[in-house]
Amino acid sequence: MSTTILGPSRVGESSSQPRATDVVLTGDRPTGSLHLGHYAGSLRSRLALQGHCAQTLLIADLQALTDSSGRAADVARHVMEVALDYLAIGIDPAQTTIAVQSRLSALAELTVLYLNLVTVSRLERNPTVKAEVELRGFERDIPAGFLCYPVSQAADISGFRATLVPVGDDQLPMIEQTNEIVRRVNRLAGASVLPECRALLSSTPRLPGVDGRKASKSLGNAIPLSATADEIRRLVRAMYTDPGHVRASAPGRVEGNVVFAYLDAFDRDLTTVTELKERYRGGGLGDVALKRRLEGVLEALVAPIRARRAELARDHAYVMEVLRAGNERANVITEAVLRDVRGAFALEGFAA
Amino acid sequence: MSTTILGPSRVGESSSQPRATDVVLTGDRPTGSLHLGHYAGSLRSRLALQGHCAQTLLIADLQALTDSSGRAADVARHVMEVALDYLAIGIDPAQTTIAVQSRLSALAELTVLYLNLVTVSRLERNPTVKAEVELRGFERDIPAGFLCYPVSQAADISGFRATLVPVGDDQLPMIEQTNEIVRRVNRLAGASVLPECRALLSSTPRLPGVDGRKASKSLGNAIPLSATADEIRRLVRAMYTDPGHVRASAPGRVEGNVVFAYLDAFDRDLTTVTELKERYRGGGLGDVALKRRLEGVLEALVAPIRARRAELARDHAYVMEVLRAGNERANVITEAVLRDVRGAFALEGFAA
Repeated sequence: MSTTILGPSRVGESSSQPRATDVVLTGDRPTGSLHLGHYAGSLRSRLALQGHCAQTLLIADLQALTDSSGRAADVARHVMEVALDYLAIGIDPAQTTIAVQSRLSALAELTVLYLNLVTVSRLERNPTVKAEVELRGFERDIPAGFLCYPVSQAADISGFRATLVPVGDDQLPMIEQTNEIVRRVNRLAGASVLPECRALLSSTPRLPGVDGRKASKSLGNAIPLSATADEIRRLVRAMYTDPGHVRASAPGRVEGNVVFAYLDAFDRDLTTVTELKERYRGGGLGDVALKRRLEGVLEALVAPIRARRAELARDHAYVMEVLRAGNERANVITEAVLRDVRGAFALEGFAA
Repeated sequence: MSTTILGPSRVGESSSQPRATDVVLTGDRPTGSLHLGHYAGSLRSRLALQGHCAQTLLIADLQALTDSSGRAADVARHVMEVALDYLAIGIDPAQTTIAVQSRLSALAELTVLYLNLVTVSRLERNPTVKAEVELRGFERDIPAGFLCYPVSQAADISGFRATLVPVGDDQLPMIEQTNEIVRRVNRLAGASVLPECRALLSSTPRLPGVDGRKASKSLGNAIPLSATADEIRRLVRAMYTDPGHVRASAPGRVEGNVVFAYLDAFDRDLTTVTELKERYRGGGLGDVALKRRLEGVLEALVAPIRARRAELARDHAYVMEVLRAGNERANVITEAVLRDVRGAFALEGFAA
C-alpha cells in the first residue's frame, strides 16, 4: 500500500504508513450524526483503507456516557445515526466491521483487568485527559470513568489486536498509554500475546466550523453529512471569510478564510482552487461567487450520501442486521483476546 | 428469622437483621486458603444463613489482582482453595450459589458503567480506600483498579440485587458507596430497578493471630481451616497468653490472652469457659492445661473439615462442576441486572 491512498502523511516519527497486514481500529463517539469535519478528517481515510487492511469501526457508546452521565437518553438513537452515516458514505460492512462498544463485553472485561496495570497518577498525567478535564471544567469532580478513559481506549485497541490507529496528534498520548499496557500484559504473559500499535496521523488539517471556530454540533457551526441542499446553502452563506474584504474588487485574505479551508478539503480541481486563491488575493473575486462554487462542490459531495442515507433510514432492519453481524464478528475477535489476557493474569484454568 | 441464627448483633443503626426475603452476597478474595479467623468472623454466619435466605458466595478473583498486579500467578489455584474451604465447612451448593467473579462478565460491564456515576474525588475520600492505600504504602502510585475497587464492589452487590451484605464495620463506607450508585441508577432509570442494601455486622470480635497481632497468612500467625493436628498443636503452643503469668499458681490476665479469644470464639461450653477464666484470674490454672483444652476444641472443629476437604481435593471434577453450575446460575442473575442498568443508561434498544 502506498502513500497515495491517504495522501501525503505528516512528517515525523509519530505517524506511520498503512501496510496490507495492518489491523486498523477507529471509530466515533455517538453524540449525534457526523459532519463534514469528520468526513475530511477521518471518514475519507477509512474509505481509502477499506479493502486494503482489516478494519473495524467501533461506535464508542460507552465513551459517550462519560461526559454526560446525567443525560443518557440519546445514546442508542445516536448509535443508529452514526451507523447510518457510515453506510451512507460507502462503508461496506462486508469489508469493514462496524461494531458497538457496549455490545462487546470482552472490552469491559479487558478494561477492568487493565485498571490494575496503570496507576492513578499515570492517568492524571495523561495530556489528553488533562486537556479534556480543563475543557469540560471538571477539575476534581472528574467522573472516574473519564479518568479511566485511556484504559478503556487501550482495551478497545488491543481488544482487536489493532496495529494502526488513525488519530489526531492530540491523541498520541493515548497510543503511548495503550502500548505501555500492551507491554505490561506481554511481560505478565511472558510472551507477545498483544501487538503494539502505531498512530496514523491524518494529513488533513482540522476543518473549522462555518464561523471559523472549532466545528461542534452544539455550536451549530458544522455541516452535517446528512445536510439538505437548503442547509448547505444557508451554512455556506454564513461562512466566515475575510471581514476586510468588503467589495469583490478589493484584495482578500485566503488564510483563515473558511470557504478556502472547505475548498482545500473537498474541491477535487486543485488547479482551479489555486487560481481562485490568486484571484481572491489580487482582488476581483467576490465572496458570493466563491461561496457559490463551494456550495456546488459540497452539494455534489453530500447529495449521494443524503440520498443513500434516506434510503437506509427507511430500512431499519437492515442497519440493525449490519450491527448484529458486526458485533458477532467483533465478539469472536475480542473474546479471543480476552482469553489471552486472562491467561496473562493467570485467570484461566478453572471453571469456565 | 430471629437473631438467634447469628447470635446477638452489635447495637447500632448500621447493622441489620436478616429477613427471609433477603438476598445475601458475601465472598472472599482468593489469596490462599481460609483460616479460623474467617470461620469465626464470617463463614459461620454464612452457614447459619444457608437455607434461610438466598445467598451467593463470590470468589472475588479480580479483586485479588488489584493489590499484587505484578505477581498474578496464583489466583486460579487460590480460587480452587477457597472453593474447597467453602465446601469443606458445609456450604451446600444446592442452597448457596458459589460463583467466580472473573467469570461473570456482567459484573465487569456494570463496573465500567458505574465508573460514570462516581467522581474521582469521591473515591479518594472513601475511608476504606484511604486506609488500605496507607496500609499497602501505595501513596500516589495507587493502581487505578484499587481506586475503583468500591465501584467494582458496588457492581458485585447490585449485580446480585443483594439486600444484605455481611461486612466488618471498616467496610461500612463500601455499603454507603454502593447505595449512592444504586440511587443514581434508579434516578437515571426513573424507576427502582436496583434495591439498596443493608450491612450485616458480625457480632464476633476479630480473631487475633496466635501472636496477638492481626491474623494474616503472610505473618504465618493464622490457623488454616485445613490445618493438620500437628499444625494446630504447634500453633496453639505458640499462642500469646500473659507474659506475666510465669507459674500456674500465679494469677493471669484473660484480656488480650489469645487462648481465651479462641475459646470465646470456638468453645461451645460457655459455662466451663467462664469457670476457666475465673480460675486463670485467681491463679491455679497453667497455660499448658489451658492450651490443651483449646487444642481439643480446635481439633474437634477442624478434623471433620480437614477430612471432608481432603476427600473433595481428590475430586477436582466435582469442585469444577460446582463452580461451573454456580457461575451459570450467577450469570443468569447478573445478566438480567445488566439489562436493567443498560436500560437506565438508555443503551438498550438497538442491535443485540
